[in-house]
Amino acid sequence: MAVYTAVPAEALAQFLSRYDCGTLVSAKGIAEGVENSNYLVETTGCDGSGHRYILTLYEKRVDPADLPFFIDLLDHLGDKGCLVPRFIADRDGQRLQELCGRPACLIEFLTGVSVTEPTQAQAFAAGKAMAELHLAAQDFTGGRPNTLGVSGWAPLATSCDGALNTIQPGLEGRVMAELAHLEGRWPRDLAQSVIHADLFPDNVLMLGDAVTGLIDFYFSCTDVRAYDLAIMHGAWCFDSDGATYHADRGVALIAGYQSVLPLSGDERAAFPTLCRGAALRFLLTRAYDWINTPPDAMVTRKDPLAYLRRLDFYAGADIDSLVVPA
Amino acid sequence: MAVYTAVPAEALAQFLSRYDCGTLVSAKGIAEGVENSNYLVETTGCDGSGHRYILTLYEKRVDPADLPFFIDLLDHLGDKGCLVPRFIADRDGQRLQELCGRPACLIEFLTGVSVTEPTQAQAFAAGKAMAELHLAAQDFTGGRPNTLGVSGWAPLATSCDGALNTIQPGLEGRVMAELAHLEGRWPRDLAQSVIHADLFPDNVLMLGDAVTGLIDFYFSCTDVRAYDLAIMHGAWCFDSDGATYHADRGVALIAGYQSVLPLSGDERAAFPTLCRGAALRFLLTRAYDWINTPPDAMVTRKDPLAYLRRLDFYAGADIDSLVVPA
Repeated sequence: MAVYTAVPAEALAQFLSRYDCGTLVSAKGIAEGVENSNYLVETTGCDGSGHRYILTLYEKRVDPADLPFFIDLLDHLGDKGCLVPRFIADRDGQRLQELCGRPACLIEFLTGVSVTEPTQAQAFAAGKAMAELHLAAQDFTGGRPNTLGVSGWAPLATSCDGALNTIQPGLEGRVMAELAHLEGRWPRDLAQSVIHADLFPDNVLMLGDAVTGLIDFYFSCTDVRAYDLAIMHGAWCFDSDGATYHADRGVALIAGYQSVLPLSGDERAAFPTLCRGAALRFLLTRAYDWINTPPDAMVTRKDPLAYLRRLDFYAGADIDSLVVPA
Repeated sequence: MAVYTAVPAEALAQFLSRYDCGTLVSAKGIAEGVENSNYLVETTGCDGSGHRYILTLYEKRVDPADLPFFIDLLDHLGDKGCLVPRFIADRDGQRLQELCGRPACLIEFLTGVSVTEPTQAQAFAAGKAMAELHLAAQDFTGGRPNTLGVSGWAPLATSCDGALNTIQPGLEGRVMAELAHLEGRWPRDLAQSVIHADLFPDNVLMLGDAVTGLIDFYFSCTDVRAYDLAIMHGAWCFDSDGATYHADRGVALIAGYQSVLPLSGDERAAFPTLCRGAALRFLLTRAYDWINTPPDAMVTRKDPLAYLRRLDFYAGADIDSLVVPA
């Protein structure tokens, strides 16, 4: 959520000269996305009408070896009509470049803003957009393992190195019990595809009630489709502290999804378990970051307990109120 | 250089409804300026053609009581033809607002990028733009004391609380000697006006060799005009570490300034002293920030010694090589 690599204007102008995009007009470092450096870049465009792009320099969290997967995925999804940002090719057809010693890509700019308090109509539209994404991904041949999937949670808990109880007394025991619970019940044979895996409101651009873009695919991976919806449910249907569940949003989100891709009986039955897993995943990654970020680091640490509250909610949730049948 | 206050899209849309600017299309937090929160905001515009603005929320470094001064100053300078961003008035004529509990203003967006390695032509254009600013400010009736001017340096050194030598052994003695040197020689009767006081390359937007905007006036104050040029000289004519002086840039910068506003004999004679003062001012503010920012704070601390090197340069500089007569 900061600009880690300062790109001099001179280097940026030279970088842009590889593309058919006209010349540099403006560049602002933007605070967005996972731990990359992002610039909102404006050029004259070939016809002088002005074009905007996102320039991303990949920092530590993204493995450069994964970039061809992300590039191919967004190409595939875009070709199928999903509103995703395309990676722009230079005159030689190259989309993956290097700038200031970092892997770097010029990416399509999409308008829209991220909502903070989704309405029912917005939750419906976002759920529908996820289903369209899953549908479009069905015949995508690429894949990427989910390192933050169910098999990654126990190692993640271990890497917190006994410090979970410093966040809240008893948290470690709670996590271990949840791991054991999920281990025995995690569904292994639900429909899979490439999923977004991080479709928080931050990563959905909207104008009014309409989705204008799905962005930030850097966690995308191959996993259970309904698990993607479970992640989205936790991200869209609670207050940020996790204390209040907004049933209206939850119903609308799932209705939107099912308007395109109805959940199977197995997906529906597994949904509370998938939601518990999703809550545990964000609890654990937030706990890890909490433990490993100094309190005075001037970086906002996201509260892990906001996801413990969601976990508690899902552990006690009535499936019929959670997932209204299609 | 970060976004300190997160503005929800819903609150932003409501804020914008006060203005004749159409509706919200996009908003990106940008890493720019002194310690404020800035967003690059796009709206549909009244005619649907699209408009961009900078939204600034004022954080701790700007005193809200100074905002009317900055607003009036940029109005005055803009009316005189200077390329400065205007503060936008809402339908009731208000330019100073509140958003998310902070004083907030909607400000004109200007194109252009900040150069890192100015060419002679760029240094000339920037020097000329500063002179035009000084000329335009001549009949501006507002004023603001320079809290970081010559009388502020001794208290600033004291507030470093004996820690200057932790930056480099002997630095405190060097600073004290310089304070004593400048105290006796500081020119008191040179031409004054409102000056920018921070016209680093960062704060000059350019397209090619042309200046398209002067921005970030939040240090602007009433002080000696030639001191403003001295600050600019230190900022534009050295490598960032202060080790290398680029005489060609220095000559071009001053020539550009003098193409509009020739330096008087007294200004010329005082210029090396003013440059020493400017170097000491940035040495001291950087030292203060260095001492008071934890090394692990993930905020880039600017090296105070880069300004000690400039100070050393100016202390030994030959006035005739520094300031070529107009």
